[in-house]
Amino acid sequence: MMRLRATISYDGTLFAGYQVQPGERTVQLEIEKVLAKMHKGDIVKITASGRTDARVHATGQVIHFDTPLQIPVEKYQKALNVQLPRDIRVLTVEQVADDFHARYDVSGKRYRYIWDCSAVQSPFRRHYTIEANGIEPNVEAMQRAAGAIIGTHDFSCFCAANTSVVDKVRTVHGLELAWHGQELHMTISGTGFLYNMVRIIAGTLWEVGTGRRDVDSVAQAIVSMDRAIAGKTAPAHGLYLEQVFYE
Amino acid sequence: MMRLRATISYDGTLFAGYQVQPGERTVQLEIEKVLAKMHKGDIVKITASGRTDARVHATGQVIHFDTPLQIPVEKYQKALNVQLPRDIRVLTVEQVADDFHARYDVSGKRYRYIWDCSAVQSPFRRHYTIEANGIEPNVEAMQRAAGAIIGTHDFSCFCAANTSVVDKVRTVHGLELAWHGQELHMTISGTGFLYNMVRIIAGTLWEVGTGRRDVDSVAQAIVSMDRAIAGKTAPAHGLYLEQVFYE
Repeated sequence: MMRLRATISYDGTLFAGYQVQPGERTVQLEIEKVLAKMHKGDIVKITASGRTDARVHATGQVIHFDTPLQIPVEKYQKALNVQLPRDIRVLTVEQVADDFHARYDVSGKRYRYIWDCSAVQSPFRRHYTIEANGIEPNVEAMQRAAGAIIGTHDFSCFCAANTSVVDKVRTVHGLELAWHGQELHMTISGTGFLYNMVRIIAGTLWEVGTGRRDVDSVAQAIVSMDRAIAGKTAPAHGLYLEQVFYE
Repeated sequence: MMRLRATISYDGTLFAGYQVQPGERTVQLEIEKVLAKMHKGDIVKITASGRTDARVHATGQVIHFDTPLQIPVEKYQKALNVQLPRDIRVLTVEQVADDFHARYDVSGKRYRYIWDCSAVQSPFRRHYTIEANGIEPNVEAMQRAAGAIIGTHDFSCFCAANTSVVDKVRTVHGLELAWHGQELHMTISGTGFLYNMVRIIAGTLWEVGTGRRDVDSVAQAIVSMDRAIAGKTAPAHGLYLEQVFYE
């Protein structure tokens, strides 16, 4: 038996999210179906760094699983990609220590959020960016507001109400906004993220950028620890899980 | 009554092509459905610069239609985009002379063809590029072979067999190959293109680039005027109608 760690990318458009749910097409289900085929019907459970919601994308999700197969590690990537649907791709596979855990060992993550600010959204980007109908946000104001988010805080205000997590203190290491052509990209990295945290931060900063919210209101929302004081949750399909860090 | 010309972009993935076909979802049908709604049920026929096949994309298709509506021209674009499905976008609308014709007045077109040469194709590009599984083609050889295509020739060898066109002489003004990251883009412009001509040229040059065909064989194929001497027709979903030129 050996433990393998794989980095995967998926287009979240046609998935009901990462995690197996009865009757739904999910990323976990599709990968476990292929692994079951490779293991002659035996169930091989995979464990990811964390879930992603329906329509959320990943360019660097990490999973682990255990296998008794004698396939050389370097052949695993192609063996999986040949059988997986085209909206999931395995980027790398490597053998790891038997006690490596894709979720428990996470030391940090980086996410990306993308708005398309062109006058008419490209039809090719409709599932991959948020349409902003030619609005050009005040990025400088968004950047100033982002300054209040960086650091270690209780992020209750940026956490979906329906969560069971008790300790909502997390550390955000970096939050950058950058233009890529007419797309505005927000990248955010930190020790961990609460449920919907990146999408609520994106929604809140967008309100700052479009003049519907003061720069100072973001710091005030954090202090309030009240979800109602922060902005709207931005749509799922602008979000990408980009990288998972391990020590 | 006024004649309007519109530039449109569409993601060809979920269309059975541009032209109306019974029982199929096509670009023409979707636009005519919206125009009929805007015209209280009256049929408004649209005319395009030419058809595109199933799964072929457009970033600059041109259409024209006549309308008796008193809507200001500058409001037409938004009025159409609000009602159109998200895989069709109207980029511009302008009033043109009553005798402008989107097909008969075409003086040239430019197409783009895209291969994804990264080791693992991005799942986000699966409908928009041709997967090349990490093959790095010899672009210099492709460019030399392209030299034989530029100019005025009988392009019978690059025309699908099932065509009714008699005169197969066309002029190719330019054919460029350029890397955009790990994607190889071919752009080709000319006075007009025969059925499947761009895809057969793409397929033939790809065979040159991957060493399955000599550089000289392309000039020989043109002289032969025989479809069987040229290469395979490259897949539809790598092709984009990028610009239509009018005098």
